[in-house]
Amino acid sequence: MSHGDVRRLYRLKEGVHSVRTASGEVVLAAWPHLQEMGRLTAEQRSLLQVLATDRSAEKLTERCPRDQADRLLAMLSSGGWLITTVVCGDRPLFSSQPLVPHRKPLPPAEPRRLSRFASVRRDGDAIVVESPAAGAEVRLYDSRLVEPVLTLGAAQQERPDVPLEAVRLLTDELAHRGFLATTAETNSLSSVQWSPHELAFHHGSRLRGDHRMGRDFGGSYWAKGRFDAPPGKHPRWPAAAIELPRPDLDRLRVQDPALTEVMEERCSIRSYDEDNPLTVEELGEFLFRTARVRATGTDAEGLDVSSRPYPGGGAAYELEIYPLVRNVRGLDAGLYHYAPHGHRLLPVPASATALRWLMKASAAGMTGEATPQVLLVIATRFGRLAWKYQAMGYALTLKHVGVLYQSMYLAATAMRLAPCALGVGDSDAFAAATGLDYFEETSVGEFALGSLPAARRESTG
Amino acid sequence: MSHGDVRRLYRLKEGVHSVRTASGEVVLAAWPHLQEMGRLTAEQRSLLQVLATDRSAEKLTERCPRDQADRLLAMLSSGGWLITTVVCGDRPLFSSQPLVPHRKPLPPAEPRRLSRFASVRRDGDAIVVESPAAGAEVRLYDSRLVEPVLTLGAAQQERPDVPLEAVRLLTDELAHRGFLATTAETNSLSSVQWSPHELAFHHGSRLRGDHRMGRDFGGSYWAKGRFDAPPGKHPRWPAAAIELPRPDLDRLRVQDPALTEVMEERCSIRSYDEDNPLTVEELGEFLFRTARVRATGTDAEGLDVSSRPYPGGGAAYELEIYPLVRNVRGLDAGLYHYAPHGHRLLPVPASATALRWLMKASAAGMTGEATPQVLLVIATRFGRLAWKYQAMGYALTLKHVGVLYQSMYLAATAMRLAPCALGVGDSDAFAAATGLDYFEETSVGEFALGSLPAARRESTG
Repeated sequence: MSHGDVRRLYRLKEGVHSVRTASGEVVLAAWPHLQEMGRLTAEQRSLLQVLATDRSAEKLTERCPRDQADRLLAMLSSGGWLITTVVCGDRPLFSSQPLVPHRKPLPPAEPRRLSRFASVRRDGDAIVVESPAAGAEVRLYDSRLVEPVLTLGAAQQERPDVPLEAVRLLTDELAHRGFLATTAETNSLSSVQWSPHELAFHHGSRLRGDHRMGRDFGGSYWAKGRFDAPPGKHPRWPAAAIELPRPDLDRLRVQDPALTEVMEERCSIRSYDEDNPLTVEELGEFLFRTARVRATGTDAEGLDVSSRPYPGGGAAYELEIYPLVRNVRGLDAGLYHYAPHGHRLLPVPASATALRWLMKASAAGMTGEATPQVLLVIATRFGRLAWKYQAMGYALTLKHVGVLYQSMYLAATAMRLAPCALGVGDSDAFAAATGLDYFEETSVGEFALGSLPAARRESTG
Repeated sequence: MSHGDVRRLYRLKEGVHSVRTASGEVVLAAWPHLQEMGRLTAEQRSLLQVLATDRSAEKLTERCPRDQADRLLAMLSSGGWLITTVVCGDRPLFSSQPLVPHRKPLPPAEPRRLSRFASVRRDGDAIVVESPAAGAEVRLYDSRLVEPVLTLGAAQQERPDVPLEAVRLLTDELAHRGFLATTAETNSLSSVQWSPHELAFHHGSRLRGDHRMGRDFGGSYWAKGRFDAPPGKHPRWPAAAIELPRPDLDRLRVQDPALTEVMEERCSIRSYDEDNPLTVEELGEFLFRTARVRATGTDAEGLDVSSRPYPGGGAAYELEIYPLVRNVRGLDAGLYHYAPHGHRLLPVPASATALRWLMKASAAGMTGEATPQVLLVIATRFGRLAWKYQAMGYALTLKHVGVLYQSMYLAATAMRLAPCALGVGDSDAFAAATGLDYFEETSVGEFALGSLPAARRESTG
């Protein structure tokens, strides 16, 4: 196969509109971005129209003087409006879709290597190459191009149906768009500090050029009509429910300490009074103040929503609380699920080994002073958010964990208990203890609670 | 090259210890996991010792009867203790390291394809294949094996130095460990709902079998001695500082509404009184209550720490607040940085276009009722956490955003202002407005604030 068969085709990104202003200038728009293109010739404006479908540079210059066509393509390319597809004859090999206006990448480190932030995965019938450090997304339509991506075409040998010219265009595009390792990747804290999964997640969870809010990103209700929405109430655990004591809310509205007093006095306390442990009345009051359901309803698209004492995106309330009780007066040790609609605890059957693992792995985040009298494991029924929100749902669930942490800290401080939010826990241990499907409901937060140690109770009493 | 050259080698995972109990039984331990192996023969116990380095099955059976060796390998393999490396002659081709005890994968969908959760990236000189849905991590030492990973060896042709036998072992291992697409990936909400970046992040940010807390995960201070810790104070913006008014904290400790009253009354309010906008005194009080620095110090490893009114992991306080002011009495419109050590605002020079983009993209998360009088953009100086914490730092920063959101909600409610936390914002817009390096400091949260609309002020007054 001759290399002459390898060509570039150009096409405007989806969702880009060109508008002609009263003064005759052309503006390209893709919410929330605008680019003024200045005055274009009639031939250039006509090219802009035909770029809604793939065109080769030759096809474009048939209709328009070459220098005008080239100028338009250069403008569109630097603005990040143009998808380039490389074909061999009629067969597409790969395409590159810019995410942002073109920026000159940092010089690559020597020897040239793929960035440690770049990753390759299957997406439908294509293979996608992406990197949160790059300005474009590259899609491969031929699996034989995967190896050259990882090696940047080093020592590439001619193979049937994979012209070296295509490999050269591919590796040039990767270099041009910032897919190569820079010296910063090994030399600079600001780059070394990011684990690939963290930077990719940040990149994927925030708005950016190619995310269309409410269409393929954000609150799009993409799953409506395709899957039933997960119900607002957690499926009931089979064991008999334990009614939790409730506080007198009207009394608390008056007698509770002032907000500023509580916020200023709040601190993490990692030791407990084992002779006078937390009581079931206190645990009941604590959960009632922070996490009970106050009212329920349905949103405009049919998703169950509710009102609780802490804020939650879309009022979906995907978080579930599982108290792992070690030493609480009036309650057997073991794992429970908090049912916030009825303010009840449901015992969760779990093996002693699994519970020991769950407590041990979580308490490791406490810098090991004492074992919590209650470990509140916070799980996400992720589908409650993901049925509505695309790409940003997990970031939202972690923000909700933080919101709940601070609500718990403040309630515990007002109640004169010992609170401590933990930085990390073990989701495998949670799955083993509960038998829940990791994809459906998985642990995302841990909060340690207990009675205030005697010394502290006196000093601050 | 003949296929007979392709062999499997076995080795125990790092950090695995075998202990012999008083009763003569052998226990394998890798914190926090234990597995009882029962009574082993002297030959089996001796094999366990030599498995600290790569051994082929033949080498093992030289020292131990074949059935005993096979039984031991089967036990170790099902427990997830054994790394398998496939070599061709002396050349390693790939290895597979289990993350969890072996579990039977769900049946793959037809036609067999790689899971959409699986990804391939460069890691040093190797290529790593990982999937949050799989029970192992596979490393390739020959780039020619990348294509068979993506295609599962479909229509693989014999190539020099890539024996078909190795391709078969590789694709078998991928199938055996759960790297293949299941029918759930297209049919079940619980799987479809996860974007690859979200599931990979959850998997990477939580404790699991191969994370060693404080060694390659969690608060390990990995960067100490290699990079200077980013200072506790943000580098100063060059413009003249604006001193913010401070509230009388002693008065607030007494006169502020009760915690329960504030938590129960808190709600999101998305409209404002434009005739009586927020004042600079209110903005000063709000930031003082929620985010000022109360004290500073240094932790045992030399990291600057501080005390603020909201809890933060390791007291590192990586979050920075950038008020984007539209309508505040006593303050010019524009972007500012809140300097929490001195309770001041520093103007941030930014183009009008960039600020319009920043406000527009963020307000899109507000379901468009009004534009905030102040948009508080929350950025993370990620290195403040990442210098200490490995792999879990970004999850921690998002939890901190939630903690700050709830602190802001409660302070605003007590102050009778209109608060609303936003679900998502545009980090590119923030980078464009501030000129900050995306890797060093990037936006992770947005909070809208303004004066209470007149109707609400009366009704709840």
